[in-house]
Amino acid sequence: MNDQNERPGRATPIAASGSEHADGHAAPGCASRAPGLHLIGDLHGCRTGAARMTDAGALEAFCRQAVADAGLTIVGSLFHSFGAGQGVTGAVVLAESHLAIHTWPEDALVTLDVYVCNYRGDSSARAEALFGALQQAFAPTDARVHRVGRR
Amino acid sequence: MNDQNERPGRATPIAASGSEHADGHAAPGCASRAPGLHLIGDLHGCRTGAARMTDAGALEAFCRQAVADAGLTIVGSLFHSFGAGQGVTGAVVLAESHLAIHTWPEDALVTLDVYVCNYRGDSSARAEALFGALQQAFAPTDARVHRVGRR
Repeated sequence: MNDQNERPGRATPIAASGSEHADGHAAPGCASRAPGLHLIGDLHGCRTGAARMTDAGALEAFCRQAVADAGLTIVGSLFHSFGAGQGVTGAVVLAESHLAIHTWPEDALVTLDVYVCNYRGDSSARAEALFGALQQAFAPTDARVHRVGRR
Repeated sequence: MNDQNERPGRATPIAASGSEHADGHAAPGCASRAPGLHLIGDLHGCRTGAARMTDAGALEAFCRQAVADAGLTIVGSLFHSFGAGQGVTGAVVLAESHLAIHTWPEDALVTLDVYVCNYRGDSSARAEALFGALQQAFAPTDARVHRVGRR
Protein backbone atom coordinates (compact mmCIF):
# COMPACT_ATOMS: atom_id res chain seq x y z
CA MET A 1 0.00 0.00 0.00
CA ASN A 2 1.24 3.47 -0.74
CA ASP A 3 -0.91 6.36 0.38
CA GLN A 4 -0.38 9.95 -0.65
CA ASN A 5 0.07 12.34 2.22
CA GLU A 6 1.94 15.53 2.81
CA ARG A 7 4.71 15.57 5.33
CA PRO A 8 3.75 17.57 8.39
CA GLY A 9 5.54 20.87 8.28
CA ARG A 10 7.02 20.23 4.89
CA ALA A 11 5.12 22.85 2.92
CA THR A 12 5.78 25.63 5.42
CA PRO A 13 9.10 25.17 7.17
CA ILE A 14 9.36 26.80 10.54
CA ALA A 15 11.43 29.95 10.85
CA ALA A 16 15.13 29.51 11.26
CA SER A 17 15.23 31.80 14.28
CA GLY A 18 16.33 30.09 17.46
CA SER A 19 18.37 27.53 15.57
CA GLU A 20 20.57 26.93 18.62
CA HIS A 21 19.65 23.59 20.11
CA ALA A 22 18.92 23.28 23.80
CA ASP A 23 22.27 21.57 24.27
CA GLY A 24 23.99 24.58 22.74
CA HIS A 25 24.97 22.75 19.58
CA ALA A 26 24.03 24.75 16.50
CA ALA A 27 22.97 22.57 13.58
CA PRO A 28 23.69 24.11 10.16
CA GLY A 29 20.41 25.15 8.63
CA CYS A 30 18.34 23.14 11.06
CA ALA A 31 15.42 25.05 12.50
CA SER A 32 14.65 24.84 16.19
CA ARG A 33 12.49 21.85 17.04
CA ALA A 34 11.94 19.21 19.65
CA PRO A 35 14.49 16.40 19.41
CA GLY A 36 13.31 13.44 17.40
CA LEU A 37 12.26 10.47 19.52
CA HIS A 38 13.25 6.93 18.58
CA LEU A 39 11.72 4.17 20.68
CA ILE A 40 13.46 0.80 20.39
CA GLY A 41 11.99 -2.34 21.89
CA ASP A 42 13.28 -5.88 22.02
CA LEU A 43 10.28 -7.79 23.28
CA HIS A 44 10.98 -11.26 24.64
CA GLY A 45 8.50 -13.89 25.77
CA CYS A 46 5.67 -12.50 23.62
CA ARG A 47 2.38 -14.16 24.56
CA THR A 48 0.26 -12.90 21.67
CA GLY A 49 -1.55 -15.25 19.30
CA ALA A 50 0.55 -16.91 16.62
CA ALA A 51 -1.25 -15.16 13.76
CA ARG A 52 0.08 -11.77 14.81
CA MET A 53 3.64 -13.16 14.63
CA THR A 54 3.29 -15.16 11.39
CA ASP A 55 0.57 -13.61 9.18
CA ALA A 56 2.09 -10.70 7.26
CA GLY A 57 -1.28 -9.33 6.14
CA ALA A 58 -2.76 -9.49 9.63
CA LEU A 59 0.30 -7.86 11.18
CA GLU A 60 0.34 -5.13 8.52
CA ALA A 61 -3.34 -4.36 9.12
CA PHE A 62 -2.82 -4.37 12.87
CA CYS A 63 0.15 -2.00 12.66
CA ARG A 64 -1.63 0.36 10.26
CA GLN A 65 -4.63 0.53 12.58
CA ALA A 66 -2.38 1.17 15.58
CA VAL A 67 -0.65 4.00 13.70
CA ALA A 68 -4.00 5.55 12.79
CA ASP A 69 -5.28 5.17 16.34
CA ALA A 70 -2.20 7.02 17.59
CA GLY A 71 -2.87 9.92 15.23
CA LEU A 72 0.20 9.41 13.05
CA THR A 73 0.12 9.57 9.24
CA ILE A 74 0.84 6.58 6.98
CA VAL A 75 2.44 7.15 3.58
CA GLY A 76 2.95 3.45 2.82
CA SER A 77 3.67 0.03 4.28
CA LEU A 78 5.57 -3.09 3.27
CA PHE A 79 5.41 -6.44 5.06
CA HIS A 80 7.11 -9.69 4.11
CA SER A 81 6.50 -13.24 5.33
CA PHE A 82 9.39 -15.70 5.55
CA GLY A 83 7.02 -18.61 4.97
CA ALA A 84 4.07 -20.43 6.53
CA GLY A 85 4.37 -20.38 10.31
CA GLN A 86 7.53 -18.33 10.15
CA GLY A 87 8.34 -14.75 11.02
CA VAL A 88 7.37 -11.47 9.42
CA THR A 89 9.37 -8.35 8.77
CA GLY A 90 7.82 -5.04 7.86
CA ALA A 91 7.80 -1.27 7.90
CA VAL A 92 5.15 1.41 7.96
CA VAL A 93 6.58 4.57 6.45
CA LEU A 94 5.09 7.63 8.15
CA ALA A 95 4.94 11.29 7.31
CA GLU A 96 6.49 11.66 10.78
CA SER A 97 9.20 9.00 10.04
CA HIS A 98 8.66 5.24 10.51
CA LEU A 99 7.56 2.11 12.35
CA ALA A 100 9.56 -1.10 11.81
CA ILE A 101 8.79 -4.52 13.21
CA HIS A 102 10.35 -7.97 12.99
CA THR A 103 8.95 -11.16 14.53
CA TRP A 104 10.51 -14.51 15.43
CA PRO A 105 7.59 -16.70 16.50
CA GLU A 106 9.81 -19.68 17.28
CA ASP A 107 11.50 -17.57 19.96
CA ALA A 108 8.46 -15.49 21.00
CA LEU A 109 10.60 -12.46 20.08
CA VAL A 110 9.56 -9.20 18.45
CA THR A 111 11.79 -6.22 17.74
CA LEU A 112 10.02 -2.90 17.38
CA ASP A 113 11.03 0.61 16.32
CA VAL A 114 8.94 3.76 16.37
CA TYR A 115 10.70 6.93 15.23
CA VAL A 116 9.19 10.41 14.95
CA CYS A 117 11.43 13.21 13.73
CA ASN A 118 9.46 15.99 15.45
CA TYR A 119 10.51 18.27 12.64
CA ARG A 120 7.50 20.45 13.17
CA GLY A 121 5.29 19.86 16.14
CA ASP A 122 6.13 17.31 18.78
CA SER A 123 4.78 13.84 17.96
CA SER A 124 6.50 12.24 20.96
CA ALA A 125 3.26 11.54 22.79
CA ARG A 126 1.80 9.88 19.69
CA ALA A 127 4.96 7.79 19.31
CA GLU A 128 4.78 6.71 22.95
CA ALA A 129 1.10 5.81 22.52
CA LEU A 130 1.83 3.74 19.41
CA PHE A 131 4.79 2.00 20.98
CA GLY A 132 2.80 1.30 24.14
CA ALA A 133 -0.15 -0.12 22.22
CA LEU A 134 2.05 -2.46 20.21
CA GLN A 135 4.05 -3.55 23.22
CA GLN A 136 0.83 -4.30 25.09
CA ALA A 137 -0.53 -6.30 22.15
CA PHE A 138 2.51 -8.56 22.08
CA ALA A 139 2.42 -9.03 25.87
CA PRO A 140 6.13 -9.69 26.40
CA THR A 141 7.40 -11.10 29.67
CA ASP A 142 10.61 -9.10 29.19
CA ALA A 143 10.67 -5.79 27.30
CA ARG A 144 14.05 -4.18 26.74
CA VAL A 145 13.44 -0.60 25.68
CA HIS A 146 15.77 2.19 24.58
CA ARG A 147 14.62 5.78 24.12
CA VAL A 148 17.00 7.68 21.84
CA GLY A 149 16.73 11.43 21.44
CA ARG A 150 17.67 12.44 17.89
CA ARG A 151 18.63 15.95 16.87
CA MET B 1 9.47 -3.70 -5.14
CA ASN B 2 9.05 -6.85 -3.13
CA ASP B 3 11.62 -9.55 -3.59
CA GLN B 4 11.32 -13.07 -2.27
CA ASN B 5 14.15 -14.14 -0.06
CA GLU B 6 14.57 -16.43 2.86
CA ARG B 7 15.53 -15.01 6.19
CA PRO B 8 19.04 -15.99 7.13
CA GLY B 9 18.93 -18.65 9.77
CA ARG B 10 15.18 -18.92 9.64
CA ALA B 11 14.95 -22.40 8.15
CA THR B 12 17.44 -23.89 10.55
CA PRO B 13 17.33 -22.17 13.93
CA ILE B 14 20.51 -22.38 15.90
CA ALA B 15 20.63 -24.71 18.86
CA ALA B 16 19.13 -23.45 22.08
CA SER B 17 22.19 -24.44 24.08
CA GLY B 18 24.02 -21.54 25.63
CA SER B 19 20.87 -19.44 25.81
CA GLU B 20 22.33 -17.38 28.64
CA HIS B 21 23.29 -13.99 27.25
CA ALA B 22 26.72 -12.58 27.87
CA ASP B 23 25.19 -10.12 30.32
CA GLY B 24 23.78 -13.01 32.31
CA HIS B 25 20.21 -12.29 31.36
CA ALA B 26 18.43 -15.37 30.05
CA ALA B 27 15.90 -14.64 27.32
CA PRO B 28 13.03 -17.11 27.20
CA GLY B 29 13.51 -19.30 24.15
CA CYS B 30 16.11 -17.04 22.61
CA ALA B 31 19.12 -18.89 21.32
CA SER B 32 22.59 -17.55 21.92
CA ARG B 33 23.64 -15.02 19.31
CA ALA B 34 25.55 -11.81 18.81
CA PRO B 35 23.59 -8.77 19.97
CA GLY B 36 21.72 -7.02 17.21
CA LEU B 37 23.37 -3.82 16.03
CA HIS B 38 21.33 -0.69 15.34
CA LEU B 39 23.22 2.21 13.81
CA ILE B 40 21.45 5.56 14.07
CA GLY B 41 22.72 8.61 12.24
CA ASP B 42 21.48 12.18 12.20
CA LEU B 43 23.49 13.70 9.37
CA HIS B 44 23.60 17.50 9.28
CA GLY B 45 25.11 19.72 6.63
CA CYS B 46 24.80 17.11 3.88
CA ARG B 47 26.70 18.20 0.77
CA THR B 48 25.42 15.59 -1.65
CA GLY B 49 23.65 16.50 -4.89
CA ALA B 50 20.03 17.59 -4.57
CA ALA B 51 18.72 14.61 -6.56
CA ARG B 52 19.79 12.18 -3.88
CA MET B 53 17.75 14.17 -1.34
CA THR B 54 14.64 14.80 -3.49
CA ASP B 55 14.27 12.03 -6.10
CA ALA B 56 12.57 9.06 -4.46
CA GLY B 57 13.40 6.68 -7.31
CA ALA B 58 17.05 7.69 -7.40
CA LEU B 59 17.39 7.42 -3.63
CA GLU B 60 15.68 4.03 -3.61
CA ALA B 61 17.99 2.71 -6.33
CA PHE B 62 21.02 4.12 -4.54
CA CYS B 63 20.03 2.53 -1.22
CA ARG B 64 19.26 -0.82 -2.81
CA GLN B 65 22.65 -0.85 -4.53
CA ALA B 66 24.39 0.09 -1.29
CA VAL B 67 22.61 -2.76 0.51
CA ALA B 68 23.65 -5.21 -2.19
CA ASP B 69 27.22 -3.93 -2.16
CA ALA B 70 27.35 -4.51 1.59
CA GLY B 71 26.23 -8.12 1.16
CA LEU B 72 22.86 -7.73 2.88
CA THR B 73 19.62 -9.19 1.52
CA ILE B 74 16.68 -7.09 0.30
CA VAL B 75 13.14 -8.43 0.67
CA GLY B 76 11.45 -5.18 -0.42
CA SER B 77 11.64 -1.39 -0.44
CA LEU B 78 9.22 1.50 -0.24
CA PHE B 79 10.12 5.14 -0.89
CA HIS B 80 7.82 8.17 -0.87
CA SER B 81 8.39 11.69 -2.19
CA PHE B 82 6.75 14.64 -0.45
CA GLY B 83 6.67 16.56 -3.74
CA ALA B 84 8.94 18.13 -6.34
CA GLY B 85 12.10 19.44 -4.72
CA GLN B 86 10.99 18.21 -1.32
CA GLY B 87 12.16 15.43 0.93
CA VAL B 88 11.93 11.67 0.63
CA THR B 89 11.16 9.03 3.22
CA GLY B 90 11.78 5.36 2.69
CA ALA B 91 12.65 1.94 3.96
CA VAL B 92 14.48 -1.08 2.61
CA VAL B 93 13.24 -4.17 4.40
CA LEU B 94 16.04 -6.70 4.77
CA ALA B 95 16.18 -10.37 5.59
CA GLU B 96 18.58 -9.18 8.30
CA SER B 97 16.15 -6.41 9.49
CA HIS B 98 15.98 -2.93 7.89
CA LEU B 99 17.37 0.31 6.52
CA ALA B 100 15.32 3.50 6.96
CA ILE B 101 16.13 6.94 5.60
CA HIS B 102 14.48 10.36 5.70
CA THR B 103 15.74 13.48 3.94
CA TRP B 104 15.10 17.19 4.47
CA PRO B 105 16.85 18.92 1.55
CA GLU B 106 15.87 22.38 2.76
CA ASP B 107 17.93 21.76 5.89
CA ALA B 108 20.62 19.55 4.34
CA LEU B 109 19.54 16.94 6.91
CA VAL B 110 19.30 13.16 6.54
CA THR B 111 18.34 10.69 9.24
CA LEU B 112 19.54 7.16 8.72
CA ASP B 113 18.95 3.80 10.44
CA VAL B 114 20.63 0.49 9.72
CA TYR B 115 19.55 -2.40 11.94
CA VAL B 116 20.75 -6.01 11.71
CA CYS B 117 19.31 -8.49 14.19
CA ASN B 118 22.29 -10.88 14.04
CA TYR B 119 19.88 -13.70 14.72
CA ARG B 120 22.14 -16.16 13.04
CA GLY B 121 25.58 -15.09 11.98
CA ASP B 122 26.94 -11.68 12.80
CA SER B 123 26.06 -9.08 10.13
CA SER B 124 27.55 -6.21 12.15
CA ALA B 125 30.43 -5.67 9.75
CA ARG B 126 28.02 -5.52 6.81
CA ALA B 127 25.83 -3.06 8.68
CA GLU B 128 28.82 -0.87 9.45
CA ALA B 129 29.89 -1.00 5.79
CA LEU B 130 26.42 -0.02 4.60
CA PHE B 131 26.08 2.75 7.14
CA GLY B 132 29.54 4.06 6.32
CA ALA B 133 28.88 4.04 2.57
CA LEU B 134 25.64 5.97 2.96
CA GLN B 135 27.15 8.44 5.39
CA GLN B 136 30.04 9.04 3.01
CA ALA B 137 27.65 9.57 0.09
CA PHE B 138 25.73 12.29 1.93
CA ALA B 139 28.97 14.00 3.03
CA PRO B 140 27.63 15.58 6.23
CA THR B 141 29.60 18.28 8.03
CA ASP B 142 28.20 17.00 11.33
CA ALA B 143 27.25 13.34 11.83
CA ARG B 144 25.62 12.41 15.13
CA VAL B 145 25.76 8.65 15.45
CA HIS B 146 24.38 6.24 18.03
CA ARG B 147 25.26 2.55 18.12
CA VAL B 148 22.66 0.55 20.02
CA GLY B 149 23.26 -3.07 20.94
CA ARG B 150 20.00 -5.01 20.84
CA ARG B 151 19.45 -8.34 22.52
